[in-house]
Amino acid sequence: MQARLSVDAYVEGVLSGNRLILSRAITLIESQLPSDRILAQQVLEHILPRTGSSIRIGITGVPGVGKSTFIEAFGKALTADGKKTAVLAIDPTSQRSKGSIMGDKTRMEELAHDPMAYIRPSPSGGSLGGVANKTRETLLLCEAAGFDIILVETMGVGQSETVVKGMVDFFLLLMLAGAGDELQGIKKGIMEMADAVVITKADGHNQSAAQRAVIEYQNAFHLFPPNENGWFPPVLTCSALEKRGLHEIWAQILQFDSQSKAIGFHVKNRRQQNLEWMHSLIRQTLEEQFYSHKEITQQLHEVELMVQNEKWLPMRAATFLMDIFRS
Amino acid sequence: MQARLSVDAYVEGVLSGNRLILSRAITLIESQLPSDRILAQQVLEHILPRTGSSIRIGITGVPGVGKSTFIEAFGKALTADGKKTAVLAIDPTSQRSKGSIMGDKTRMEELAHDPMAYIRPSPSGGSLGGVANKTRETLLLCEAAGFDIILVETMGVGQSETVVKGMVDFFLLLMLAGAGDELQGIKKGIMEMADAVVITKADGHNQSAAQRAVIEYQNAFHLFPPNENGWFPPVLTCSALEKRGLHEIWAQILQFDSQSKAIGFHVKNRRQQNLEWMHSLIRQTLEEQFYSHKEITQQLHEVELMVQNEKWLPMRAATFLMDIFRS
Repeated sequence: MQARLSVDAYVEGVLSGNRLILSRAITLIESQLPSDRILAQQVLEHILPRTGSSIRIGITGVPGVGKSTFIEAFGKALTADGKKTAVLAIDPTSQRSKGSIMGDKTRMEELAHDPMAYIRPSPSGGSLGGVANKTRETLLLCEAAGFDIILVETMGVGQSETVVKGMVDFFLLLMLAGAGDELQGIKKGIMEMADAVVITKADGHNQSAAQRAVIEYQNAFHLFPPNENGWFPPVLTCSALEKRGLHEIWAQILQFDSQSKAIGFHVKNRRQQNLEWMHSLIRQTLEEQFYSHKEITQQLHEVELMVQNEKWLPMRAATFLMDIFRS
Repeated sequence: MQARLSVDAYVEGVLSGNRLILSRAITLIESQLPSDRILAQQVLEHILPRTGSSIRIGITGVPGVGKSTFIEAFGKALTADGKKTAVLAIDPTSQRSKGSIMGDKTRMEELAHDPMAYIRPSPSGGSLGGVANKTRETLLLCEAAGFDIILVETMGVGQSETVVKGMVDFFLLLMLAGAGDELQGIKKGIMEMADAVVITKADGHNQSAAQRAVIEYQNAFHLFPPNENGWFPPVLTCSALEKRGLHEIWAQILQFDSQSKAIGFHVKNRRQQNLEWMHSLIRQTLEEQFYSHKEITQQLHEVELMVQNEKWLPMRAATFLMDIFRS
């Protein structure tokens, strides 16, 4: 293992925008070692006053929607516009050792070589909660390192969209035109989280289908309540291949951002997210302690079967397990 | 306070369909006294084998959609069809002492006097989790007392829809025609929970607006993924005033029910709901213990301010509070 730096060395390196130190600081954050956790928290506390000024954008969509291609094209458009852009990801299934670093770098090759961009693959392994914490902390480091835009990609696994929604300002849903089978992969509730829907691959033969999809989604959104800040999610099209639609998406995000800031929603939302982060850490810790309790792990399966098969009431089962936990 | 009966007396009374005993058993379940909780659990364990055979239907909609009027008309249609129907409610804001029993009885006067129907207002006070537990247990008692259909009404407060969705087989969303302002009250995510949407008050001048609303919602649902059991939610209209559309709704519920049972979804869903009930009881208990800890209650507000104002990282705050909890 690489030697650790001092707190000051991490802090100065990150604040000066040194990418090597940024990467090492992220590695520190991702470490499971208790001594590293302490060091990481000290680094984060020092950089905290320098965080918060980026636009945080979550991006989701089913596999096959062209997420990597979109992020590469969108990221290039942002850096060409002078915006330092970091790309993070949340994928609780990722196994770093199986080569996902390589995977991430090669799937966005142009952006990976862009000096204005920084790509970091998902922290590997662990629970979604654990992975998400590390991504949140990495996001703060990237902000302190001077990145203007943070794109957080969700791999669409489990509850990862909800978690990403809770750490970003703007949530972008990528969709394919020509609904039907492609939609099967979209999970319930995602539509209603979106601040914008982008129909991808709107090029060649797909263009008319994309236009029809725009109208369908626009009609659907009219049936939804507006977002908490009074924003009605626009439906846009884009072709990463032909580099069309990217600036329109960016313009919408900027409009959302200025509207959110003008009415005070931005600050309110960020504060609420911080509070929810704290409470979710507490919940996670409580549940981890409970479900990793030795005797509970031994009995849980049996108890669950009793409940599933209606031999025991859930209340009796919960009381039984809580008694074990307390003793 | 009324004297308590023996376990056997409650069990026999409920199983024989004695309404007076059923009401007293529900009162027992709703009691906060520890001795009553023990007695209540014993009663529930005895009646457990006789539960599970009803169709459990959740009903939600914004205030003004005509929920009470709908439930009264729908309930009357069910009892006229020979179905014993119980109406329960979840309203974490209800204060029994402020007369909500009277309120509930008078707002569904005809149904309240129907010998085939049984109306029980929401358990009063306490957290949503606590209220929901009591409604779940009441639902089991009503099943044991021979009710064929249980309607669970949500008052549309906070997360109550999610909680009701987790205890029913079929979730019905009532909507008004002529979208716009009325929609403001609908919360995010509710649309995607629905197994059917019913446009209420589809009578008189409203009829053409109701038909337009049907088409709009049908189009919107095509953009959603189908429910887990392959069911596409139908959009129907109804007039409680003119008693139209009620049988069509019931026919859809029966079709859903037989489809769910045929493909095994019904059993799977009920088992999953039992399991989730147990885990949510565990989470509730853990969080109650944490957030009612004396020193934590004293410090929490201060800590939350530190987090909201980004003086402290959520991790630091969570660790600080967890240390208090453990000591």
